[in-house]
Amino acid sequence: MVNLTKKTLRVSKIKDGTVIDHITGGHALDVIKILRITGRVNGVVTVAMNVPSKTLGVKDMVKIEGRELKSEEVDKIALLAPRATINIIRNYKVTDKQRVKLPKVIREIVRCANPACISNSTEPVLPTFYVDNEEPLRLRCHYCASIMEKQDILKQF
Amino acid sequence: MVNLTKKTLRVSKIKDGTVIDHITGGHALDVIKILRITGRVNGVVTVAMNVPSKTLGVKDMVKIEGRELKSEEVDKIALLAPRATINIIRNYKVTDKQRVKLPKVIREIVRCANPACISNSTEPVLPTFYVDNEEPLRLRCHYCASIMEKQDILKQF
Repeated sequence: MVNLTKKTLRVSKIKDGTVIDHITGGHALDVIKILRITGRVNGVVTVAMNVPSKTLGVKDMVKIEGRELKSEEVDKIALLAPRATINIIRNYKVTDKQRVKLPKVIREIVRCANPACISNSTEPVLPTFYVDNEEPLRLRCHYCASIMEKQDILKQF
Repeated sequence: MVNLTKKTLRVSKIKDGTVIDHITGGHALDVIKILRITGRVNGVVTVAMNVPSKTLGVKDMVKIEGRELKSEEVDKIALLAPRATINIIRNYKVTDKQRVKLPKVIREIVRCANPACISNSTEPVLPTFYVDNEEPLRLRCHYCASIMEKQDILKQF
């Protein structure tokens, strides 16, 4: 077995792009999915899973070269990795560092899984959810009180 | 944009485990899926996608720490990344290096997508396919001549 206590930099520094760090261990592939990264388009993406972390036990990381995440993308990441930090890198330097934040109320990002919910009708109603639990994620629909769990949400991305 | 011509080691060396190199660009996530790596279990896994490569243009890599792939796993990788190389690492040294090889006839690994195919019945018949094309992969069922493409095969893993 590999010695997991040894401190090594598993993924090298990048010149320009975004580093998503402190992703809950095992959730990097979900983050990749949410960002619609398939690897089929240009740009280097590196992913490290289950890396030992002082604060989290294990953590995941994603580095996306040549792409700076938009704020709506950061909001989506908060759904699945509420302790993640986002670093924007320009010329090897961190120019912006932010922690994702899961709001108490989620609007628009997620659709209700209940087909009979009014938010899925033609009524002019925005999908709205309350965060019942952060990790594991559990959302409750404002209109029909349906519960949405992480797997239901991942299906939408 | 990041300078993709600069030679950098994007993922560090590992002590023990398996390095899958020269994966067709954009297919690392398929390899991960075939190996049933979800990141939910122990062990560090690093993935690099769309890394510049002299021979392939771009390539993907997967490093799995603390796990040596079995030959049936290597055979599955050949389905999606026919030019991949598999390196088994012990104490930072490559102890075994092999190129995956896609055979002309595929037995057992894949099931026929046609529910009426005799290989999906209770008859004692082994699923058998001919490789009509390597990349993109196209398999032809020995029994019912159904064509299976990469996406059909990925669904089985």
